[in-house]
Amino acid sequence: MLRPDQIVTGARLSARDPGYCAASLDCGVLMLPESTAEVSTICSHANAAGIGLVPHGGLTGLVEGTASHPGQVAISIERMARVLRIDPDQRIAVVEAGTVLQDVIDAAADHGLMPGLDIPSRGSARIGGLLSTNAGGIRVLRYGMARQNVLGLEAVLANGEVLDAMNCLQKNNAGFDLKHLFIGAEGTLGIITRAVIALVPRPRETRVALVAAERFEDLAKLLGAARSRFDSQLLSFEVMWPEYYRHTTAQAGFGLLPLAADHPIYAILETGHWHPEPGDCPLTEFLGGAFEEGQIIDATVAQNEAQRSAIWRAREDGDSIEGHFGACIDYDIGMELSAMPAYVARLRARIAHTAPEHPPFFYGHIGDGNLHVTFGLPPERLAARALFDDAVYGSLDGVGATTVSAEHGIGEEKRAVLPLSRDATYLSVMAQLKACLDPKGIMNPGKVFPR
Amino acid sequence: MLRPDQIVTGARLSARDPGYCAASLDCGVLMLPESTAEVSTICSHANAAGIGLVPHGGLTGLVEGTASHPGQVAISIERMARVLRIDPDQRIAVVEAGTVLQDVIDAAADHGLMPGLDIPSRGSARIGGLLSTNAGGIRVLRYGMARQNVLGLEAVLANGEVLDAMNCLQKNNAGFDLKHLFIGAEGTLGIITRAVIALVPRPRETRVALVAAERFEDLAKLLGAARSRFDSQLLSFEVMWPEYYRHTTAQAGFGLLPLAADHPIYAILETGHWHPEPGDCPLTEFLGGAFEEGQIIDATVAQNEAQRSAIWRAREDGDSIEGHFGACIDYDIGMELSAMPAYVARLRARIAHTAPEHPPFFYGHIGDGNLHVTFGLPPERLAARALFDDAVYGSLDGVGATTVSAEHGIGEEKRAVLPLSRDATYLSVMAQLKACLDPKGIMNPGKVFPR
Ligand SMILES: Cc1cc2nc3c(=O)[nH]c(=O)nc-3n(C[C@H](O)[C@H](O)[C@H](O)COP(=O)(O)OP(=O)(O)OC[C@H]3O[C@@H](n4cnc5c(N)ncnc54)[C@H](O)[C@@H]3O)c2cc1C
Ligand SMILES: Cc1cc2nc3c(=O)[nH]c(=O)nc-3n(C[C@H](O)[C@H](O)[C@H](O)COP(=O)(O)OP(=O)(O)OC[C@H]3O[C@@H](n4cnc5c(N)ncnc54)[C@H](O)[C@@H]3O)c2cc1C
Repeated sequence: MLRPDQIVTGARLSARDPGYCAASLDCGVLMLPESTAEVSTICSHANAAGIGLVPHGGLTGLVEGTASHPGQVAISIERMARVLRIDPDQRIAVVEAGTVLQDVIDAAADHGLMPGLDIPSRGSARIGGLLSTNAGGIRVLRYGMARQNVLGLEAVLANGEVLDAMNCLQKNNAGFDLKHLFIGAEGTLGIITRAVIALVPRPRETRVALVAAERFEDLAKLLGAARSRFDSQLLSFEVMWPEYYRHTTAQAGFGLLPLAADHPIYAILETGHWHPEPGDCPLTEFLGGAFEEGQIIDATVAQNEAQRSAIWRAREDGDSIEGHFGACIDYDIGMELSAMPAYVARLRARIAHTAPEHPPFFYGHIGDGNLHVTFGLPPERLAARALFDDAVYGSLDGVGATTVSAEHGIGEEKRAVLPLSRDATYLSVMAQLKACLDPKGIMNPGKVFPR
Repeated sequence: MLRPDQIVTGARLSARDPGYCAASLDCGVLMLPESTAEVSTICSHANAAGIGLVPHGGLTGLVEGTASHPGQVAISIERMARVLRIDPDQRIAVVEAGTVLQDVIDAAADHGLMPGLDIPSRGSARIGGLLSTNAGGIRVLRYGMARQNVLGLEAVLANGEVLDAMNCLQKNNAGFDLKHLFIGAEGTLGIITRAVIALVPRPRETRVALVAAERFEDLAKLLGAARSRFDSQLLSFEVMWPEYYRHTTAQAGFGLLPLAADHPIYAILETGHWHPEPGDCPLTEFLGGAFEEGQIIDATVAQNEAQRSAIWRAREDGDSIEGHFGACIDYDIGMELSAMPAYVARLRARIAHTAPEHPPFFYGHIGDGNLHVTFGLPPERLAARALFDDAVYGSLDGVGATTVSAEHGIGEEKRAVLPLSRDATYLSVMAQLKACLDPKGIMNPGKVFPR
């Protein structure tokens, strides 16, 4: 079946980048199928033999979802990376699941379209990984998460059977919509091999602004006002607390700061304009009003691509925290907007007490109630993880509706805290589905579910 | 447990309206629980005894999904009909599943909001039924189907366990998103008892136009142009073939025709305006251009509520077909837009041959590729249903991507044709899920799956 170059071991394997999960390649064997049929053969053999399979996409996942262990086999879909069809009338892209998001963006751009989904890891993350994690990103506000941006998919089940749910129609209520089982399943129910991605019209123009405010509450008001003013033109609303902004803009090569680094809190707004009038900039006008009303204390609207990318770099360069400290611990929690400032204050206070040398970096997709918290620390301190877990999750007590994973998923890393967000019945139904579709437990063992 | 008035039988039962499914009450027993706990008790007893339960919502379903048979028990959620909370900041409505859609619309309107979901049966259809059928409707183009408009739900499983998936957060990737199992499951996996419905800003103004064109292809172009011009302001794009328009506008009390009844094809466009400029009507201007380019041959934009409702009545009064002929057979198919005119021509020709006395009425949510076909006929001709089935589904051969149910679901009525849209593996995975969550098969037996 597979040619020798499709099975990677030893030195060839060690030479590969494990991505954002150090243990991705620990199993020692990586298979590189080139077709759905090959994925199917691998699954049926693994199932017969009871060998755990660990699906790999772009390896940008942040919850140890691609970690593999001796005795298991990793399987990467990277050689199944063709854009099969762009249909501008139906507004769909039919792709193999190994396609990198940026390649879908590029292929769609030729038709004046784009996927609604966009995330900072667009240059590496693959469609199969994006769907398996139900990725969020910087435009959820406007277009929803990965789930809302997919019409159909094909998945290979644990036993090797190929599930054809490659729906291309906008509406299809013929029986259960099985694609939803695999979206967000983190590879525990099957391997996604193809997908039909919804495309949306690319805005003719986008405008990006960075603003600063006195208080989070002012930004919450600004968000409300921006949603009223721009409605579906509002693509992104991202918030950065000052430690984060100071850190990312202090990196080598950053260049001129878009705004001074001593403000209490920052937000990025991006609007899309499909029918821009020459000359006018509604975002500038809107921010002028917000300034007058005291919701913001400073603002800059990007006037060219360099300014635009500087603003986004301030937000997207979270990796520099790990780069600077040597290691980091990431959290991806969610709560109602109104609960967020008190939560941040409480967690800051707690950490000031228990680990003052590692103040948290806060940022996130605030339009979606999603707060990222990152601690930078030297690798040897990673062992103290429990201390940070306790602080971050403990501070959620009494906050109301919360989640331990707004967008990154559970993987191996968050398995232990999943019960904070889901009750026993919920977890038991999840386990029943897992047992139903993967009775031998070969699909991504130890992720989401205990091994 | 239940009080006597919560168990309806005999004359009290016969006095009730079976709704759009004549066999809804055939089982002879209807239970009216008033809380999730009561639904749970009913389910666990039924499960222990192996008694089939048939969930009833507003009874507006069109695929015999609420049909009940002797030996089964019908269970209606109509007494669980409270709007529990409207949260204008989070833009959500928390409701009991028996709430009628119109009541959610009204409650949200007080806050300048509305559910994205809207369908002609809004005055009777209940949230539990809408979610269980993953209803579509007249705004799918803009807001998606029921599934896209729900953040969370609570469902009682066959064994009486209560699954709490009442998520209120915009984003929550903590484990599988189990709500999707129950959305579109037509009551075969559990009974939905509560839900969190997403709300969207109510437009300050809506504009409704009726247009006529020479050919379907011109309307397809008009749709493309309208989507470019209005993007997310385009709420609806509905098409009526002339037989349908002639029929609904000829009903008693219709009044003045919005447009002459002798055009080859009609469409309704509705746009929403959140920031209308006084005086301007972009829809009128847009249609002026379409007229000049020859895409349309006649058009009228409603100038007041009476004109607006006349236009919508022409579209929404499909019931008058049954009223006029005594009975009707409905189809709800989907295909790519480009395939539609040839399909309509082929089906017309086929029927002209085999049943010339029952020409089809065509209409539908064309923006979504959803075509409704209705045959009016005297009740005694219902036995000849196979002839119409053969014509409608037979004409799908070679059409490319199609579905036998774009929005109404499968129920009992379309069970036999489900394999036209889903292959054996797909159906087998559906059956495995059913067996997993409802091993005794008590949930809505005979719907979607063979009994
Ligand atoms: C700089 C940076 C920024 C990021 N920003 C965001 C963000 O804004 N929003 C967000 O949601 N995430 C974000 N992430 C996380 C990550 O990019 C997403 O989770 C992404 O969806 C992972 O895609 P991937 O192809 O890299 O998947 P991988 O990391 O390879 O895999 C992720 C999970 O999916 C499984 N999987 C992969 N492919 C398949 C398949 N074909 N079939 C079945 N299972 C499969 C894996 O087993 C694993 O459990 C970010 C990551 C980085 C590094
Ligand atoms: C005039 C008219 C116009 C219509 N237009 C549209 C349209 O545009 N788009 C569209 O999609 N449909 C349309 N329909 C069909 C119908 O309104 C929808 O299918 C609607 O979602 C059904 O809701 P209901 O509450 O009436 O459900 P019911 O008819 O009572 O039930 C429908 C199905 O859901 C199950 N069910 C009901 N409640 C629950 C519950 N709480 N838990 C689990 N299962 C449950 C039932 O067992 C049944 O299988 C129309 C119907 C009419 C009469």
